[in-house]
Amino acid sequence: MSTHYAVGIDVGGTSIAIGLVDSLGNLLVKKSLETKPERSFEAIIQDIAGTVLLLLEQTGKKIEDINGTGFGVPSTIDPKTKKLIFANNLFWLNMDLTGEYSKYIPGPIYIENDADCAALGEVICDPQAGKNVLMVTFGTGIGGGLIINGTIFRGCDGFGIEPGHTVLVYGGRECNCGNSGCVEAYCSVPALVEQTKEKMNSCPGSLMWEGCIDSGGRYDINLADSHTSFTAAKKGDTAALELLDNFTAMAGQAIANFITAYRPEKVIIGGGLCNEGDYFITALYETAKKSYFGSGLMPMPPFNKARLGNDAGIVGAAMLAMQATAL
Amino acid sequence: MSTHYAVGIDVGGTSIAIGLVDSLGNLLVKKSLETKPERSFEAIIQDIAGTVLLLLEQTGKKIEDINGTGFGVPSTIDPKTKKLIFANNLFWLNMDLTGEYSKYIPGPIYIENDADCAALGEVICDPQAGKNVLMVTFGTGIGGGLIINGTIFRGCDGFGIEPGHTVLVYGGRECNCGNSGCVEAYCSVPALVEQTKEKMNSCPGSLMWEGCIDSGGRYDINLADSHTSFTAAKKGDTAALELLDNFTAMAGQAIANFITAYRPEKVIIGGGLCNEGDYFITALYETAKKSYFGSGLMPMPPFNKARLGNDAGIVGAAMLAMQATAL
Repeated sequence: MSTHYAVGIDVGGTSIAIGLVDSLGNLLVKKSLETKPERSFEAIIQDIAGTVLLLLEQTGKKIEDINGTGFGVPSTIDPKTKKLIFANNLFWLNMDLTGEYSKYIPGPIYIENDADCAALGEVICDPQAGKNVLMVTFGTGIGGGLIINGTIFRGCDGFGIEPGHTVLVYGGRECNCGNSGCVEAYCSVPALVEQTKEKMNSCPGSLMWEGCIDSGGRYDINLADSHTSFTAAKKGDTAALELLDNFTAMAGQAIANFITAYRPEKVIIGGGLCNEGDYFITALYETAKKSYFGSGLMPMPPFNKARLGNDAGIVGAAMLAMQATAL
Repeated sequence: MSTHYAVGIDVGGTSIAIGLVDSLGNLLVKKSLETKPERSFEAIIQDIAGTVLLLLEQTGKKIEDINGTGFGVPSTIDPKTKKLIFANNLFWLNMDLTGEYSKYIPGPIYIENDADCAALGEVICDPQAGKNVLMVTFGTGIGGGLIINGTIFRGCDGFGIEPGHTVLVYGGRECNCGNSGCVEAYCSVPALVEQTKEKMNSCPGSLMWEGCIDSGGRYDINLADSHTSFTAAKKGDTAALELLDNFTAMAGQAIANFITAYRPEKVIIGGGLCNEGDYFITALYETAKKSYFGSGLMPMPPFNKARLGNDAGIVGAAMLAMQATAL
């Protein structure tokens, strides 16, 4: 039996991860690009395709060795035309990804929502994962993928779930989707960074400032990122701990809502913030455990960190192509 | 072919509706009891059983003519033992409904969440209803039933969806489930009545007071009920219109959340408030249409009033027994 490979591409608002995956779901090689969503759609796809060709060259593979390409995209996808209807973090509206990518790379193309891809990747690559799994990704956006009986739940129209754009704070902060009070407006990486800066401004003595020193030795609040509060909190900084208590309490309540809504047997936490490990995930779990409907009476699903970490999206996307062409 | 009948029992926090239904889903006769949840569980079940026997007598049926009894209960139900784990509006915890009811009425007993029953009743009795339907009931509580591919979605553990206990107002009003900010704490009938009284107190000139005159001709705010605001609003009362604008905006956002979460092809509105007809349902639709994720880009499911009205629960419950015994 010859070995098969597929390309997996995980498109995010900040970066695009591209990898070559074998038929067992092993990631052979990967490379990240900055998304720079202010570029044209065409420029971004050209950049992606160039990287795919580079990875093939690096691994000594030919384009004929590839079964196909899978894309995970933070977008709703038209189930018939496969056009990207609405990717609010990329400013993409009704984009023809298949047509554009095919200009550079031949072979079949499969497209799913990025969080659905990640969830599928996790479930396929973990025999213990179960068949009814909710994955929530905390990154530039809040994504969600729901696996029911081993398959992606797409809803009646193929658009899947969008838990990041359910409202948690009625009448709250404006979200980039146009609504206000969405989970994403409070619990995403940009929201955390914003909250970090607010807290730093009100707490000039916080250790969070130590993580924001520029090359000239000066404090620069614009260096604050998603790690700033976690790093300071791990050193016992009160301001950072307070900030993260609030942040994880909201994110945990959001997940409690999703448990009440979907009753999965397992919750997988992915996205950039899952790299903060137990510090983030345990805090989410403890809040969600108090807040889901029937807490203490009905089983609480266990929370797992995405086993594939930030690679779940690449692997899941590649597995789309691998599964489809293996049939 | 002889005609078959089943008993359908829809247990609510305020009243219990009991009916006799034929194999086509026609409701032959029904009777309502006050729930009086302060009574013992045993007294309530005895009262229900007595009413079933009365209805049989009235229609000249014998107990042998009945295929079985279906219960719709505002409770989570253990999928294995069929015990009622948690009915927060009835103060029931881990109740053995099957055992208690069997003391009086023989035959098989089927139990489902009341909103799931109602959704199933609506889908079975309407050939146009579609196979992916979300039903939301606005009554003493907010219930929800989700039909995916024609069958009740129960989640991995059989507990189904509980959209009334997802949080819409983070850190908001206390809910009787123990959490705070739940949809039910803002959009149920008791919440509407509470909001009505608050508005009446702050608007002494409102026409809502006209609906609250006691037998001695005196205003009594405690006579305010779920109709008070609708009646006054239909006469153009500004205070009532304002109140209902806020109320339906929140309820509409809640449904927008559920559309974003479940992507149904149709939404059915049931429960006591659905009797306010288009005045309520159209207002919900208009708010939800602005607020679901992808508004304007992705299809908005149509909203229907429950065709069976408040009888959906009885019919759906009876159809559980009818379907199961017809197999």
